Amino acid sequence: MLENVKLEEAQELILDFIKPLPAESVPLLEALGRIICRDTFAAYDLPVCEQSAVDGFAVSASEKEKVHSYIVREFLKPGEMPVSSLNPGQAARVVTGGPAPVGTIAVVPYEITRLAGNQLHFTGDPVPGENIKPRGEDFRKGDLLARQGTVINPGLIGALAAFGKSEVAVYRRPKVAVLGMGQEIIPCQSMPLPGQIRDSNGPILAALAQRDGSQVTGIELVGDGDLTQIKAQLEKLLRQADIVLTTGGTASGECDQALRAVRQTGAKLLFWGVKIKPGSHSGAAVYDDKLIISLSGNPAACAAGYHLLAAPVLRLLQGLSPYPEYVTAVCTSSFLKKGGPRRFIQANLEINKEGLKVTIMPGQKSSMLRGLLNNGNALIDLPAGHPPLDAGAEVSVIILNAVR
Amino acid sequence: MLENVKLEEAQELILDFIKPLPAESVPLLEALGRIICRDTFAAYDLPVCEQSAVDGFAVSASEKEKVHSYIVREFLKPGEMPVSSLNPGQAARVVTGGPAPVGTIAVVPYEITRLAGNQLHFTGDPVPGENIKPRGEDFRKGDLLARQGTVINPGLIGALAAFGKSEVAVYRRPKVAVLGMGQEIIPCQSMPLPGQIRDSNGPILAALAQRDGSQVTGIELVGDGDLTQIKAQLEKLLRQADIVLTTGGTASGECDQALRAVRQTGAKLLFWGVKIKPGSHSGAAVYDDKLIISLSGNPAACAAGYHLLAAPVLRLLQGLSPYPEYVTAVCTSSFLKKGGPRRFIQANLEINKEGLKVTIMPGQKSSMLRGLLNNGNALIDLPAGHPPLDAGAEVSVIILNAVR
Repeated sequence: MLENVKLEEAQELILDFIKPLPAESVPLLEALGRIICRDTFAAYDLPVCEQSAVDGFAVSASEKEKVHSYIVREFLKPGEMPVSSLNPGQAARVVTGGPAPVGTIAVVPYEITRLAGNQLHFTGDPVPGENIKPRGEDFRKGDLLARQGTVINPGLIGALAAFGKSEVAVYRRPKVAVLGMGQEIIPCQSMPLPGQIRDSNGPILAALAQRDGSQVTGIELVGDGDLTQIKAQLEKLLRQADIVLTTGGTASGECDQALRAVRQTGAKLLFWGVKIKPGSHSGAAVYDDKLIISLSGNPAACAAGYHLLAAPVLRLLQGLSPYPEYVTAVCTSSFLKKGGPRRFIQANLEINKEGLKVTIMPGQKSSMLRGLLNNGNALIDLPAGHPPLDAGAEVSVIILNAVR
Repeated sequence: MLENVKLEEAQELILDFIKPLPAESVPLLEALGRIICRDTFAAYDLPVCEQSAVDGFAVSASEKEKVHSYIVREFLKPGEMPVSSLNPGQAARVVTGGPAPVGTIAVVPYEITRLAGNQLHFTGDPVPGENIKPRGEDFRKGDLLARQGTVINPGLIGALAAFGKSEVAVYRRPKVAVLGMGQEIIPCQSMPLPGQIRDSNGPILAALAQRDGSQVTGIELVGDGDLTQIKAQLEKLLRQADIVLTTGGTASGECDQALRAVRQTGAKLLFWGVKIKPGSHSGAAVYDDKLIISLSGNPAACAAGYHLLAAPVLRLLQGLSPYPEYVTAVCTSSFLKKGGPRRFIQANLEINKEGLKVTIMPGQKSSMLRGLLNNGNALIDLPAGHPPLDAGAEVSVIILNAVR
């Protein structure tokens, strides 16, 4: 087993094992935020025929004169097809999006016309082609609507609807289960006895996985179960999920409950320990075709481990690029600690008039929840052995929550 | 009734009528993305007592010497409380997050210790307070966890869990129904006859409302129903929803089906027509305590009208600031049209190394879907009578999808 690996090595060891989940078909109206699993093209021209772009009168060719007079042959309502074509001096009432009769040279907007019986009057010259939407103006047959791996947004839903797709093939959602270790950890709704701590990592990991497009199949705690019970619990969760996140129990020394439990299942360990802070107590193992990622029990370390090791897996399982998205931003606050391993600082990235600024969240100890409280949408990535960070410095920042 | 009002006037007329929806209690694990409806504070200090920050040995005061030797009085496991306090020269095995015995002056990390029987050895001087988390280090009783109107993120879910909250009071989701007008419009799963068009606006509006935190209660089309049937349909949707979005049927002249249908219900019209492009065919009316917003049938105009008139309502209903969030960005493309009313251009806002750049989507005609296809996450706001837009110019941009 590899110990205390570099972050990139840890990510590669895990991702080498992952491939996108199989496709499933979902109703179009439930596809928002899902990831489309094949390149999708326009099946035909849209509009399918020449249409009027406005409410008005389709007119035929006529002699040039300043006041135009036409005979209106028919008054088309929405959904109606023209019965006859237009000869010079003839017109037809048409509606936005409605078909224009054969022989139409332009559509004159309703607002600038005057009708007396079936005599149409207006001023000015209709420019040939004006207010006519050519066939295929919006999409030509074969045009790309979406590349495989596109997150489905409302506009794409509209385009798929326009082509009659009431179902879409998307990558299945990853199924994620969470197992909280440590016999002092109790469910958040229970009343702690002295020495007991309410579980916050289970809810945090469940919410993060959910936000990143996963379905959470279970959140359990090992409580004071013995190793055999924990092994059974882990195996049960592995049967129900694609990936099990364990949190806590990754102590130094003889108490590494997580490592012992993972070993008990017979899972193949990929690595244990990563050269990052917080989150050094992270590990991963493979069990059949499932993945176990073990994260620290300290909330901030648990969240950092999730973003750096688990989120890439959830992205790749859904057909997205696994690696985190980096930007450069100006850090508005200073950070006095220096040296040590590569450090990730929970921060809030904001767009303002001057560009991108990133603010360090108060409460950066790995045992603290406070740093995760606000809109912690970014991690500042400081290299190993970094000097203290001065306010105003440019930093490299990972944007979290890249799925949406 | 006011006609062709300014955008700000239209927004005010609608928003004056809106107040946040009542609270509802949801399970903590279903609260992600919802908006908390009251200021929430820490109910007690967290941690509740002094804790060890590491796995190691709690040690008492001792004489200064380079090699320390202590007698270990007890070996505490996770969840165990100390039985005895420490006298000088005494130590106790403690775990991360576990309570430290009375008399502890520091915790020495496990990694740098050596144990022989119950004799503990290590090198160096323990600094008083080192590796001890003071009571209330993370939160002091009364600390603010979240202001009313905060979008609930995974970190806040963790903090609420840590304080034993298994339910959260959030604003109820807005209920939104969509009614597609125009007798030529057929459900997207149907096969169009000549002159018929598949509905794309219903799916687009449903997806936008869903993304903005709403629950969609119905998507219907009026088909070839007469005015009495349409009125009945509109009234049915109004009974099930807080807000009904109609789309289409807002033609110029005698065909304004939307206006006639809204009038038929007896709803009080707030305005009809807005001085914007696209989306000028937008209107709003009040029916009892419900709102009707009528949007254009052209897809891009429908979406723009949604973002400018409906999305603010959905935000305010959920206790958020209703107005769109503006940033300044550099436009990478040019836009040749000039003059006319205030114009909103569907665009994609991206963060890159140099800052914010915004790219105009291809296909900006209001009848086109193409402009909505990609990650159209922004609208460029050009003032009335604007000159042509040159690539490289700074523009004012509305960020869409501000709820998450």
